[in-house]
Amino acid sequence: MILGKVVGTVWATRKDEKLQSMKFLIVRHVDFDYKLKDNFLVAVDSVGAGAGEIVLVAQGSSARLTELTHQKPIDSVIMAIVDKLDIESDWNKD
Amino acid sequence: MILGKVVGTVWATRKDEKLQSMKFLIVRHVDFDYKLKDNFLVAVDSVGAGAGEIVLVAQGSSARLTELTHQKPIDSVIMAIVDKLDIESDWNKD
Amino acid sequence: MILGKVVGTVWATRKDEKLQSMKFLIVRHVDFDYKLKDNFLVAVDSVGAGAGEIVLVAQGSSARLTELTHQKPIDSVIMAIVDKLDIESDWNKD
Amino acid sequence: MILGKVVGTVWATRKDEKLQSMKFLIVRHVDFDYKLKDNFLVAVDSVGAGAGEIVLVAQGSSARLTELTHQKPIDSVIMAIVDKLDIESDWNKD
Amino acid sequence: MILGKVVGTVWATRKDEKLQSMKFLIVRHVDFDYKLKDNFLVAVDSVGAGAGEIVLVAQGSSARLTELTHQKPIDSVIMAIVDKLDIESDWNKD
Repeated sequence: MILGKVVGTVWATRKDEKLQSMKFLIVRHVDFDYKLKDNFLVAVDSVGAGAGEIVLVAQGSSARLTELTHQKPIDSVIMAIVDKLDIESDWNKD
Repeated sequence: MILGKVVGTVWATRKDEKLQSMKFLIVRHVDFDYKLKDNFLVAVDSVGAGAGEIVLVAQGSSARLTELTHQKPIDSVIMAIVDKLDIESDWNKD
Repeated sequence: MILGKVVGTVWATRKDEKLQSMKFLIVRHVDFDYKLKDNFLVAVDSVGAGAGEIVLVAQGSSARLTELTHQKPIDSVIMAIVDKLDIESDWNKD
Repeated sequence: MILGKVVGTVWATRKDEKLQSMKFLIVRHVDFDYKLKDNFLVAVDSVGAGAGEIVLVAQGSSARLTELTHQKPIDSVIMAIVDKLDIESDWNKD
Repeated sequence: MILGKVVGTVWATRKDEKLQSMKFLIVRHVDFDYKLKDNFLVAVDSVGAGAGEIVLVAQGSSARLTELTHQKPIDSVIMAIVDKLDIESDWNKD
């Protein structure tokens, strides 16, 4: 999964009929210290994530394995909201 | 999903027989402000997207989950046309 | 799908038994103007593509959805030969 | 599979209900000499990996093929802990 | 598929139980002239590839479609050993 931060919402009225009522959020990749990176993706929210929250995004066919996204034409889902990271500083260095 | 802009069409008469009548569009990646990036992909249109429109593209096996693309040998589908983005400027900064 | 140009052939006599009689082609990524990029991949040909032709390549599980590649251990297939691209120059700029 | 090093843990109480009791680890990519690279991912641990260990991570639908991760909305799993690498120095050069 | 060169072996005694007896090889990406690139991956060998050999690697769910890797939690498999490449020099230039 990738670690990201919710920074916005996508509004799309014309879409596949199986996607009604889904919330599409803009997630920017972040580093360990939650610093924003340049790249981002759009993911369906399955856990009630809000702007500013750090989340995990599952991609590919796995994105369809939440109750909300089953059999839907989407490839990215937010499946967890991160409380905190424990970085083992002894190991996170060369 | 990736955020992109439709900038053209691909014409291909010799193709897998399951792909007849599909429309292949050229989608360039864009940033939050719809600024074009260098990379692009070719996606099947399932929602009637036109040139200049901002769209969402689903990739991988998920691209086959629209009615049009079911069981077809394609890996990218336009499944939504974007009306607008709401960027939370408080969060979209370091 | 990615847009590419066929630039060569891979010869491999020792391979998975399900891959007999398949043709493996070397496809370099190209830009809108068919200019060659540095990256390339090896794809199975399912449409009779020849050297120098511009093609579309489907990747992942979708590569197995042609008659030829069904259930085979391959992840890239040429499923269309491109006749031409129509780039909408009004939209393909910032 | 990618080669990585476990450098931390992700805590997430709000997540898809199928993900209870799973351990999410932060894995940084490493080179042959276990030197840390910049990129990282979050993977479910299925083999009891601990901080500082070198591991293999399987991604995509394959990540769901351990007993623990079956049918779960996750796209990366640690499925092996590396004891050592044998690099053939004669071949690992130009 | 990607084109690579086998440069080493991964030893891992603690791994998913479905992975016993599999051989994990280190494969570095190569260019047309077999020049080594920086990136590499770890792949299961299904065709008896040895150090120094040029191989094709299939990734994603397709990696599970050899007899050896069926239903296993692995995402990359060597499914062919390359004898030679025929590059069409007329086409492999701008």
